[in-house]
Order: sequence, then structure tokens, then C-alpha cells
Amino acid sequence: MEYRKIKSQENEEDNLHNDVEDPRERLLSVVSPQQHNMSGAKEQSKWKLKSIVTIALTLLTSSQAILIVWSKRAGKYEYSVTTANFSVEALKCALSLLALARIWNKDGVTEDNTLKTTIDEVIVYPIPAALYLVKNLLQYYIFAYVDAPSYQILKNFNIISTGVLYRIILKRKLSEVQWAAFALLCAGCTTAQLNCSSDSVLQTPLQGWIMAIVMAFLSGFAGVYTEAIIKKRPSRNINVQNFWLYVFGMVFNVMAIFIQDFDAVMNKGFFHGYSLITICMILNHALSGIAVSMVMKYANNIVKVYSTSVAMLLTAVVSMFLFQFHLSLAFFLGSTVVSVSVYLHSIGKLQR
Amino acid sequence: MEYRKIKSQENEEDNLHNDVEDPRERLLSVVSPQQHNMSGAKEQSKWKLKSIVTIALTLLTSSQAILIVWSKRAGKYEYSVTTANFSVEALKCALSLLALARIWNKDGVTEDNTLKTTIDEVIVYPIPAALYLVKNLLQYYIFAYVDAPSYQILKNFNIISTGVLYRIILKRKLSEVQWAAFALLCAGCTTAQLNCSSDSVLQTPLQGWIMAIVMAFLSGFAGVYTEAIIKKRPSRNINVQNFWLYVFGMVFNVMAIFIQDFDAVMNKGFFHGYSLITICMILNHALSGIAVSMVMKYANNIVKVYSTSVAMLLTAVVSMFLFQFHLSLAFFLGSTVVSVSVYLHSIGKLQR
Repeated sequence: MEYRKIKSQENEEDNLHNDVEDPRERLLSVVSPQQHNMSGAKEQSKWKLKSIVTIALTLLTSSQAILIVWSKRAGKYEYSVTTANFSVEALKCALSLLALARIWNKDGVTEDNTLKTTIDEVIVYPIPAALYLVKNLLQYYIFAYVDAPSYQILKNFNIISTGVLYRIILKRKLSEVQWAAFALLCAGCTTAQLNCSSDSVLQTPLQGWIMAIVMAFLSGFAGVYTEAIIKKRPSRNINVQNFWLYVFGMVFNVMAIFIQDFDAVMNKGFFHGYSLITICMILNHALSGIAVSMVMKYANNIVKVYSTSVAMLLTAVVSMFLFQFHLSLAFFLGSTVVSVSVYLHSIGKLQR
Repeated sequence: MEYRKIKSQENEEDNLHNDVEDPRERLLSVVSPQQHNMSGAKEQSKWKLKSIVTIALTLLTSSQAILIVWSKRAGKYEYSVTTANFSVEALKCALSLLALARIWNKDGVTEDNTLKTTIDEVIVYPIPAALYLVKNLLQYYIFAYVDAPSYQILKNFNIISTGVLYRIILKRKLSEVQWAAFALLCAGCTTAQLNCSSDSVLQTPLQGWIMAIVMAFLSGFAGVYTEAIIKKRPSRNINVQNFWLYVFGMVFNVMAIFIQDFDAVMNKGFFHGYSLITICMILNHALSGIAVSMVMKYANNIVKVYSTSVAMLLTAVVSMFLFQFHLSLAFFLGSTVVSVSVYLHSIGKLQR
């Protein structure tokens, strides 16, 4: 694959520098040598951008979970999940076009911000959407072997699979301390979710474990592959890249509607069962999706995983105030481990 | 206090070197300059000694807990805890004398291995025993505020208090990574002990928290102070140092018998209710006690805390085989965090 070649070239160049991951530095090493000497101000603005998108992702993800709790409390909704997913992709597409229209108005159409593309550029864009489709279909089968609370716990494999694939596919090194931090992030998130029925996960049959691991690798691969696509053309406008990603997202979600919900949509209509909360959730998912793309562009998958993990903890704390949610000792211990993990990840860069 | 002065001199010397804790290196910096240039072979043998005492402490501590489970399974025993504690101190004293007798036979009596001592040397020896006595008496009052499972969880404060006092009293620095590892050790040990009733610890009243913290600091202080006493005279034979420590241990345990169990001992006799398991437990406690002293001499309190924490995990694994003990998900997560902590502690030395 072509992006692999580009990555290996990068990698050789990188071996001359410190081998330890620093996303900001990495981003610079992808761009041209002139830009390499960019002024401190420009570097600082990139750093600021990275921080803003990371915080946005964290806040959007945590409000996502709160909306889910809210919708559950408000009663069961009968809307079809596949049509909601399609709406999210369509909304993201529309928002990307809106952003592009503003840019075209301001700067005119350039090579970097035109929607016009080549087969060579666009051919890889369907892959993440296809991977997510396979993963979502698998999700229906895993519940034959794994109960819902166990599934929540097994989903934490995502953290490990993302780290491993990030290392293998993007060839970015993490320091020893950062690897340790990553294992802790996984253990800490799982600990924070522990309750009295959690031990049932240990009774999961082998098929359940295998499917959970396969699903973790599918979703990790989709994330890392998206980063590879977006970073392959660093000067390309992110809204154009998003537009093409989301177009294929729409295509694959139409397929999902046909596979899973065709009859329901035909009989009851596309927007059957939609409520104010459903619309809030679609809006939130669309904005989080865009924030994920931005994090991929300006930071990386590791930052994304940390951001969503911290969001999970934030959700619990906010739920405590909103819904008189009970915080357990396991939650405090898990949060401590996650916090230490964030700290270790940040000092891990400087070490060695 | 005099040992404080010695420590500060040491410390100044140390600031010239790498400031990060390496017990082996520290041990060398305590001894005279000639010895500072000791051969690699001698250094290696010290390292070997340190490893042996650490492994011995780990194995003895884990078999200790297994003996306790065994004794509980075998039925309730009516022996008095204070007489058992006294017997442990007396046995340790006897074993130290036995070891000394062998050394005197081989090397003759020297300044370093004579039992003869000065007020100046011996005056600090009662302090750790007195601290433990206060702590053990407090233990009777804390149960008015804290239930037994919560107490087991609150005891993990010991880990933090030992780290803090080790830094303050012995003025040994830990690296950032090692501090993070220490926080993780505490969180991991607590996680490994979690069960469905653990959340009751969150209902502990303020008095309970305060007493638990005071007790943690008392026992941490006793441990760190013992290390300070033993390390103050590095060339002094460890068996002589142990002998004096244990003599005062016997004295304070006699006091405990008078305070708590005088009537029972008078009416039923000193060894009432002793069984084979009781004798095994006394033997085990005596050997563990000596191992702790050896770890203080040849390693330090941090190694001791790691050793006893790993022992706790070992105990659970062995109990699984011996008593069909059920390992929980929380145990696996806690063990993972403890293992990462051990790893981080060891690489933490090399960093920076």
C-alpha cells in the first residue's frame, strides 16, 4: 500500500531524531523541509489547535454518554439505529461542505481545498467505513456468547489494539513508560467500570473472547487507518478529507439499513420514533465524529484513546450530580490509575 | 537526632551523583571511601544478598497469609495473640544469638559483632517497638468506627505513608516514575482486594479515616526508623542490631500482655490454646521478622513494601490451588497494575 511506503520513508528520517513519540514533532516531520523551520508562533498555534480539538472530543464524548442515560431515563425510543447512523454521516457531510464553502469564499478554491480528487486519493477512503460496518454486524452475533455488562468490559481491548496497531501500521514508537501507561489505561478503565456482576466476564466462552478481540482489532484498525489516510496528505484541507470519509460512511450506512432495518423503514418511515433527544444525540455524534477526525489530523490515535477514556470518567462524575449516580470505590481506584496513566504518558515523552 | 546528621552529610555527597534512588548504590555511599572502590565481585555478592533476602521475605510473607487461612479453616484457636507476639520476639532473639555464636566461633569477637554496646547506640532501639505497641493498641479502638473488610482496604495507606516517610526521614529521592509507581502499587493492591462489600469503606466516618491514617503513619514511621537505625552503623553486624531490636520487642510485648491478656494468661497459662498451626505461625513470623531486618540492612523500605505487596498476590494465587479460592476480575486488574508498578519502579531508576 502506498501510504506504507511514505511511512517507511518518514521512519528512516525519524530514526535520526529521538525515537520516542511526540505527536507535535511527528506532524512537523511529515511536512516539507521549508515548513520544518516554521516559526515558534505557528508551532504554538498548531499546539493550541491540538489542545482545542482534544478538549472538544473529551467534552462531546462525555456528553454523548449523558445523553444516552437521559434518553434511557426518558423512556424507550423506537427509532432505528441504522437510520440514525445514516443521519449522523449525512450531517457530518453537510457540516464539512458548509465549512468548505466558507473557506472557498475567503481563500478561493485551491489545490488543497478543492473537492476534486483522484482515484489514487479516494480509493482508500471506503476502507474505514467498511471496517466499521463489519464490526457493527459482528456486534449482533457477539451477544450470543457475551452478556451486555461483560461486553462493556471486553470493549476495553480497544485500547490495547489501538496501541499495537498504531505501533505496527503507523510505525510510531512509544517509550517503555508510555507502553506501561497504555496497559494502565486499559486496566484503569476496566477497574472504573467494575461492579458486583463484573465477574461474569470470566465465564465468557472462548468464542466470545475471540470475537471481542477481533472486534477490538477491527475498530482499532479502522481508527489507525483513518489517521494514516488523513496524515498521508498533510497539506490537504481536513474538511475535504472528512467529506470523502463521510460520503463513504453514508454509502455503507445505506447498506446497513438494507441489511438490518429495510422492513421497519419501509413500513414506519425513515424518521419513525425520532424525538428531541434523538436529534440531540445525532447532533452530538456528528460533532464528536468531526472532532475525532480533527484529533487524527492534528494529534493521533493515542490522544483519541486518552480523550475518550477521560471522557468516560467525566461522564460518571457528571452523572453523579445529574442522576444521583453512585460512585464506587472501584471507580475511584480506576480513576486514580487512569490519572497516573495520563501523567506517565506525558512525562514518558521526555524520559530516556 | 544523630542519624539525621549522618543522613544529611550523605545527602550532600549524593547530590553530586544521580539523585534517583538506587538502593545498591546508596548502600555503598554509606560505607567508607576505601570500600567505595570495592571490587565488582563484592558488589555483585551484595546484590545477590539483597535479592535473596527480598525473595525470602516475599515467600515467608505469602506463606504467612496461607497459614492464617489454614488456621481459620481448621477451626477457631483460643491462644492469646499477645503471648504469641512475645514468643515471636523471643524466638527472633534466640535465632540472632545462635547466628552470632556461629560468627564468634568462626571469626572471634570483634568490635562489629560484639553484643557490648553504648547508651548512644542502644537508646534508639526501643523506638520502633514502642511505635508498634501504640499502633497495636490503636487497632482495638479503630474497630469502633471501621468494619473489618474496610480496615483491610484502609491498611493500604501504609504503602503511601512508607513512601512519604522514606523521602522525608531518610531523605532518599524517588524519581517521578517511581512516585507514580508507588501510587499505582497502592491502587493496585486495593483493587486486588475489592469485592462486593468493599464499597462500605466509603461510609467510614471521619474518625475512622483519621485513625487509619495515623496508624499508617505509625507503622510507616516504625519501618523507616528501623531502617535508619540499622543503616546508621553499616559495618555493625546485623545479628547484633537485630538482637537489640528484639530485646526491646520482648519488653514491649510483655507490657502488652499485662495491658490486654493478664487475666487470661494467669488463669489458663501462657501457652493455652497453642496448636501445631500456632507453632508454625510463630516460626513463620519470626523468620519473616528477621527477613524484614535483612531487607532493611541490605535493601530498603521501598523494597520491603513491594515484596509484601507481591506476596499478597502470590498468596491469592496459591490459595486458589490449595483452597479452591475464587480469583475475581478485580484481582486480575489489581495484579496487572501491581506488576506494571514493579516494572515502572525498576525502569524508573534508569530514567532521566
